[in-house]
Amino acid sequence: MRPSILLTDLYELTMLQAYHAEGMNARAAFEFFVRSLPANRNFLVAAGLAEVLDYLSALRFEEDELDWLRRSGRFTKDFIESLRGFRFTGDVDAMPEGTPFFTDEPILRITAPLKEAQLVESRVMNLLHFETLVASKAIRCALAAPDRLLVDFGLRRAHGAEAALLSARASYLAGFSGSATVEAGRRFGIPIYGTMAHSYVQAHESETAAFAAFVEAFPGNAMLLIDTYDVARAAERVAALARTLAPRGVAIKGVRLDSGDLAQDARRVRAILDAGGAPQVTIFASGNLDEYRLRDLVGSGAPIDGFGVGTRMNTSADAPFLDCAYKLQEYDGRPRRKRSAGKATWPGRKQVYRSYSADGCARGDVLTLEGESPAGTPLLRPVMRGGQRAGDTPSLEASRAHARESMRTLPAHLAALSPASPYPVTIDGTLRALADRLDAAN
Amino acid sequence: MRPSILLTDLYELTMLQAYHAEGMNARAAFEFFVRSLPANRNFLVAAGLAEVLDYLSALRFEEDELDWLRRSGRFTKDFIESLRGFRFTGDVDAMPEGTPFFTDEPILRITAPLKEAQLVESRVMNLLHFETLVASKAIRCALAAPDRLLVDFGLRRAHGAEAALLSARASYLAGFSGSATVEAGRRFGIPIYGTMAHSYVQAHESETAAFAAFVEAFPGNAMLLIDTYDVARAAERVAALARTLAPRGVAIKGVRLDSGDLAQDARRVRAILDAGGAPQVTIFASGNLDEYRLRDLVGSGAPIDGFGVGTRMNTSADAPFLDCAYKLQEYDGRPRRKRSAGKATWPGRKQVYRSYSADGCARGDVLTLEGESPAGTPLLRPVMRGGQRAGDTPSLEASRAHARESMRTLPAHLAALSPASPYPVTIDGTLRALADRLDAAN
Repeated sequence: MRPSILLTDLYELTMLQAYHAEGMNARAAFEFFVRSLPANRNFLVAAGLAEVLDYLSALRFEEDELDWLRRSGRFTKDFIESLRGFRFTGDVDAMPEGTPFFTDEPILRITAPLKEAQLVESRVMNLLHFETLVASKAIRCALAAPDRLLVDFGLRRAHGAEAALLSARASYLAGFSGSATVEAGRRFGIPIYGTMAHSYVQAHESETAAFAAFVEAFPGNAMLLIDTYDVARAAERVAALARTLAPRGVAIKGVRLDSGDLAQDARRVRAILDAGGAPQVTIFASGNLDEYRLRDLVGSGAPIDGFGVGTRMNTSADAPFLDCAYKLQEYDGRPRRKRSAGKATWPGRKQVYRSYSADGCARGDVLTLEGESPAGTPLLRPVMRGGQRAGDTPSLEASRAHARESMRTLPAHLAALSPASPYPVTIDGTLRALADRLDAAN
Repeated sequence: MRPSILLTDLYELTMLQAYHAEGMNARAAFEFFVRSLPANRNFLVAAGLAEVLDYLSALRFEEDELDWLRRSGRFTKDFIESLRGFRFTGDVDAMPEGTPFFTDEPILRITAPLKEAQLVESRVMNLLHFETLVASKAIRCALAAPDRLLVDFGLRRAHGAEAALLSARASYLAGFSGSATVEAGRRFGIPIYGTMAHSYVQAHESETAAFAAFVEAFPGNAMLLIDTYDVARAAERVAALARTLAPRGVAIKGVRLDSGDLAQDARRVRAILDAGGAPQVTIFASGNLDEYRLRDLVGSGAPIDGFGVGTRMNTSADAPFLDCAYKLQEYDGRPRRKRSAGKATWPGRKQVYRSYSADGCARGDVLTLEGESPAGTPLLRPVMRGGQRAGDTPSLEASRAHARESMRTLPAHLAALSPASPYPVTIDGTLRALADRLDAAN
């Protein structure tokens, strides 16, 4: 399912042809960063690097792609011919996936011959933006419902196939328990979960018949959906079924609520199940959930063991995009600065240093030029050199553990779902001086 | 780039195994509809059908997919074996792409053996939801900026690869002029457009040198980005360059603004270009645009010839998802009704009839059971029979023309960007009676 290299903006190719004609291809450094945090976000979580490295490793023009470019009539023969051997030969430095980060901090830098670093802009942004967006949303759900089963339910309203897969990955990275999307299980090794749809209940002559048949098909593992007709009556049917199954040693795993007042229904259902001799049956809830609803449900003490969180998580519905950029910061050894109104950038190749107090809590970051050495731990690390991976790419499990551990080091107040006192990010004096010098010169 | 058949929710497969065990596979009718309009929307535009038909036509399990299911340990050998010959053999009725529609109106019905109609739920929803979402957003942009060039600029912040491609398609269907995404041009034949990035200007020694080099590379076709440093100075450079090129018969196609006060800058730039002897150079604007900003810019009389509209359009940022459903409405000849709190459905196989006044303006729709014959034109048409396409699938150009023509028939007040008096959709008496009967019976 690798998209074509032509999944790029036309201007990348037109600029490449111009560079080709001009013979311009010195080393360029581009950085990806986020200009501002969306409303209610106190931090973001870096994600998407694994897919970026896969993309860069496999970057090439296939014959049918070159043919199409030729037939488009937009490009010179000579330029198209030059694309035949096109490969990514550059360096990548990046924050590991799962690292919390803040405004203006680059999470990835590509240093490569200009044409390579330019062409990859569109897809690198497309990947980093989306996975970072979803990981940053999903971790809020995990913070709102700690120690609950959290399952990505969002395939149907994700924005297309890749959004479904990458949001399953990004939410798992951020602490979800797994996904309902089978292909996410196959592709990323993410645990997959499933229940049943209303249609299953409706297709049967009765709800009782549907429940009985499903439990026969998945003894010990059945999750029964109980809101198709009447929740209380369905819960009684589940309890009755559990009692008839008990002598055979067959258990019902759980029930799912997907509509109505989830907290109130969960209490009613818990009472019916407990009174009906089925206290081991768990309650799972879904339907329009996000971190705010999770916080309220968990806070209310509702007896819900797990949640299916879909649409609002994997579209990041309250903030469906990030104000991110991939900007040229240095060309041919000279730092560059864009000064467009409201979109000025910090020039040069940069590094982020994070300082910790004695108890391991992050105290603040310093954004500085690479080569400076303030106190703290550098967050950008070499991940690709000369087009080859620098060491092993961490597994998804390792990145997930890194996200969890990194969160523990963040000041606790940043975990709030509403705006908190900002985490301190300092712009180093040398960097400020460079920006001033470039502004004066242009 | 066809996604795996395993791009589905796990519950589809577990339900299929249960149906398999129960020997249940009579004909089922599922319908896709939207429960409510997002804020500020007065109608939606049906899109995604072409991809759904492609998906259904190619539906099969490959050996590696069956292997993975086997190795997952979740399914019986017998069930997995039954998937080997799995094909879609059902019927599809749907509104043509580009048709405006309203709450509760099915835009697609699948009638097929239960297992087929069930398995396809997740991906059918994934496709119809997203393209309908984007087409419904994009048409608002087209309404806000009639007769301007409108180009999809959203690849970088689209939610993954497929979102980028399908939003290019859906926005073109809804009236955009084209897309910046090259692969959308290759795959769908959509016109593609490109300019240059700030990095191009920054990589050169000077803005003047960058402009000159780009025009050399694309004589007559260059769009120059003029907000990297200082807009007014850049416009003067463009005018000067245009004057030096004129004797050679080389024109500069246009300039692009991507930041700041677009209306004010466009006026300044227009004045500079006109005074500088370059009145033929067009002005193109981009940056955080959506239908509201387009309305304001066009309304202000700003001399802008075209717009690049990205992120906010292709994430449908003010309403990034639709409250849509794909529900079982009939099984084995018997109508079905889900009654979950706040999510009740109209049962049975349905049809939508649209009536027009003498001047061709749509007066209202009637939602009724198939087989009833109220006045008006039926909107759902047969598009697949027995797994085979019923007639030719319209071209994207034809669907785009249908969208444009259909919009002309809608009452003019629905084109407002804010909530207007709702379009009348009547639930037929026979349908109401059936719903009441089913409620009483269950």
